[in-house]
Amino acid sequence: MNFDLVILGAGSGGYEAGLYAYRRGMRVAFVEISPQTVGGSCLNRGCIPSKYMRHGAYLLEKLRKGENYGILLKGLELNPHKLAEGRDRVVSTIRENFKKFAEKLGIQIFYGKGVLKDTNTVSVEGKEIKANYILLATGSSCTSLGNLKPDGKKIFDTDSIWSLREFPRRMLIIGGGAVGVEFAYIYRMYGVDVILVELMDRLLPYPSIPEESSRYLARKLKRLGVDVRLKTSVLSYSDEGVLRVNLSDGSTVDVDCILLGVGRKPNTEGIGLEDVGIERDGRGFVKVNEHCQTSVENIYACGDITSPLMLAHKAMYEGKVAVSHMLGDTEWARDESLMPKVIYSAYEVASVGLTEDQAEEEGYDYHVGIVSFMSNPKAMDDGEDEGFVRLIVDRATGRILGCHILGPHAGELLHQVMHLMKAGIDVKFLASAVFSHPSLSESVVQSAMEVYYGPMTWIKRG
Amino acid sequence: MNFDLVILGAGSGGYEAGLYAYRRGMRVAFVEISPQTVGGSCLNRGCIPSKYMRHGAYLLEKLRKGENYGILLKGLELNPHKLAEGRDRVVSTIRENFKKFAEKLGIQIFYGKGVLKDTNTVSVEGKEIKANYILLATGSSCTSLGNLKPDGKKIFDTDSIWSLREFPRRMLIIGGGAVGVEFAYIYRMYGVDVILVELMDRLLPYPSIPEESSRYLARKLKRLGVDVRLKTSVLSYSDEGVLRVNLSDGSTVDVDCILLGVGRKPNTEGIGLEDVGIERDGRGFVKVNEHCQTSVENIYACGDITSPLMLAHKAMYEGKVAVSHMLGDTEWARDESLMPKVIYSAYEVASVGLTEDQAEEEGYDYHVGIVSFMSNPKAMDDGEDEGFVRLIVDRATGRILGCHILGPHAGELLHQVMHLMKAGIDVKFLASAVFSHPSLSESVVQSAMEVYYGPMTWIKRG
Repeated sequence: MNFDLVILGAGSGGYEAGLYAYRRGMRVAFVEISPQTVGGSCLNRGCIPSKYMRHGAYLLEKLRKGENYGILLKGLELNPHKLAEGRDRVVSTIRENFKKFAEKLGIQIFYGKGVLKDTNTVSVEGKEIKANYILLATGSSCTSLGNLKPDGKKIFDTDSIWSLREFPRRMLIIGGGAVGVEFAYIYRMYGVDVILVELMDRLLPYPSIPEESSRYLARKLKRLGVDVRLKTSVLSYSDEGVLRVNLSDGSTVDVDCILLGVGRKPNTEGIGLEDVGIERDGRGFVKVNEHCQTSVENIYACGDITSPLMLAHKAMYEGKVAVSHMLGDTEWARDESLMPKVIYSAYEVASVGLTEDQAEEEGYDYHVGIVSFMSNPKAMDDGEDEGFVRLIVDRATGRILGCHILGPHAGELLHQVMHLMKAGIDVKFLASAVFSHPSLSESVVQSAMEVYYGPMTWIKRG
Repeated sequence: MNFDLVILGAGSGGYEAGLYAYRRGMRVAFVEISPQTVGGSCLNRGCIPSKYMRHGAYLLEKLRKGENYGILLKGLELNPHKLAEGRDRVVSTIRENFKKFAEKLGIQIFYGKGVLKDTNTVSVEGKEIKANYILLATGSSCTSLGNLKPDGKKIFDTDSIWSLREFPRRMLIIGGGAVGVEFAYIYRMYGVDVILVELMDRLLPYPSIPEESSRYLARKLKRLGVDVRLKTSVLSYSDEGVLRVNLSDGSTVDVDCILLGVGRKPNTEGIGLEDVGIERDGRGFVKVNEHCQTSVENIYACGDITSPLMLAHKAMYEGKVAVSHMLGDTEWARDESLMPKVIYSAYEVASVGLTEDQAEEEGYDYHVGIVSFMSNPKAMDDGEDEGFVRLIVDRATGRILGCHILGPHAGELLHQVMHLMKAGIDVKFLASAVFSHPSLSESVVQSAMEVYYGPMTWIKRG
């Protein structure tokens, strides 16, 4: 069997790359563990099912303000089975349609674990598949934390949490990163007492997310009743019917279950990388150049195995970068600085580019435009007037260095800035852009106007 | 009293222009009818209160799908007073903060009807205000329809509908334009039997909105129970306790009230335009050049009085165009082709630039990229997977000629395309843009990819 391109892994990165390669005329095949894993972690155990549950949580939060819209509830029952059913239906609909679409286009999927035999051969279940190019898109897996081993009964990670089909009374979530803050919000809104512990001194402790976003989010989660504990870790636990957990703040908490929202590791073991001479860094990530080429010329890699920035859209973009380069395009390039980070918790928290701290460190003389949603008429109409747009601009050139939005639909709003940043268009353009009124996007344009002219709205808050 | 700039009308256009002028160093004053009318039609009797009510309607529609998220309601009471209170609170909050902010900045507001005395003088309540520049931003008013005269009791227009503080049992809405489809959705979701009549053969009968959007919207409104009647008009009516209305389709309907969602006229009478030599066109609109300058050099106009495109953001943009030109900038220009139209009804319907029909008429050889939200994972997660992105692209140059989005948050999503269109960036750029996954914006980028490569999603629907 001879292909132009064989892709190891039909997750977000592999699938997008494969479809793109097909559309650009390549003969493509996928190798994927099983029919149940097509779509990868993001679809089956990650962003898609969690965003579904998060939407339910968001609806529940909206209902609390129903009275402002003349909507008075006479009572509410929360049913975990219906929630799980709805969620699993979306996941399987996407997965089955992925497969059907590939089939319709004549893209083959070989099931089983793919292993590199030589630089042009992948072996899967005894079959040998030849290809001019190979794209590694094998993704990542959960890692455990010390002696806390997920058992899928009382201790869960993001692989197993989906089997939890009842709402526990009390839940401990370990890790205040993207996973932790998302599930803390979800379960809290569905009535669970949630304790969220984070080792660092802030939630979302990533350099690329401004502290202000972390502070806003922590305040809101606390207001919703989440017991947020920073600079706190788990010392030990014992199963006494309930899980009795000793925390580093000296307290002991009894919970029904624990969710580990911590580390992932790249799936780079046991697929023959070393046999064909593909280099990895000390942490196990595959070394790639800006075209996503590995140390072997015709073998590329994308997604979670190329760096710790494990985002589905990074994988999708890198997959297209790789395919473009195979086809002789050099315009597309890997660029983590333009990758958005969007977290869906009690707020949408969206960031791209540099924070103020990072701009400072990199020696920029920068302006910041800050606009609060508190004075945005659309946000007020929607009852979601908390949050802000922060725009960071290089004073010398007007180049937009970063944008950080927290609040309603932040993840969508960010795109208008991302596109301009990638196009190298300066802040002056955005300051003179047209916006629709009323819209949330108005605040994005106003953040650019503020850089030039000063606040354009009646409330200025950071 | 001497100012750099006096603005007649502190509505959307005037207010934005005034603040912008202030930030650019001008000494500014407003003339506005009364403290209750600051903010103009949009704030007090238009987009802002209607979007508030529409958000309530949207929530009610979302609740119907609550069960999919494990949210089971035990009953619901709809209270029109609470709805009106919440709405009026947002309106007055914005209005009062507008005034406070102007006051804080030292921008004076003179109350009363302003009349031009000469090209540098406005008279208001006997006071004469001198200015180097004058900006006319007087907005528009409702017009009535034949013998249907709004009485604020049973017959309403968009000036008086806000006083309706009960939900009628049965309502007739005349006009399937932006106002009609918005209120039809609102009242329907709040349990009112709504009949919506439109003279033309489609809802939203505007050349700048594709027929596909009209069809989608009509289908959805009907599904929600709105009695949509196209090619239908009111022949006569009589008040028999209920209003008995004879329609051109031969039927007679009994309703409790009627909302006129029809015409507006520019407020260009009685403000002394003719006395200082400001020219108007046959329909009463003030003639302006691309810098919003009237036939009198130092007098500018913006918003509803410059053309039938009566959108708050058109006014806001034109206000800034005018001020920029007063200050010697020539970069900003009036351009209706880049003005977005966003309608908030049972869907958000957002359009900018040319439709396919218009591209055809203008002789373009064009591509269309069409992506359905039905295969968008975020839309599926949110239970809002109806609608589409249509991107119209000039085949010869790759220039984006138009974009039409119908579906979730269409009004926000459109901005990323609007900005690129204004910047003159071609579709190839958008096809290679980064998007966040999962996001609705993904479908926007995919519409551009489709133009280049073919469908990237498993469902293609128009």
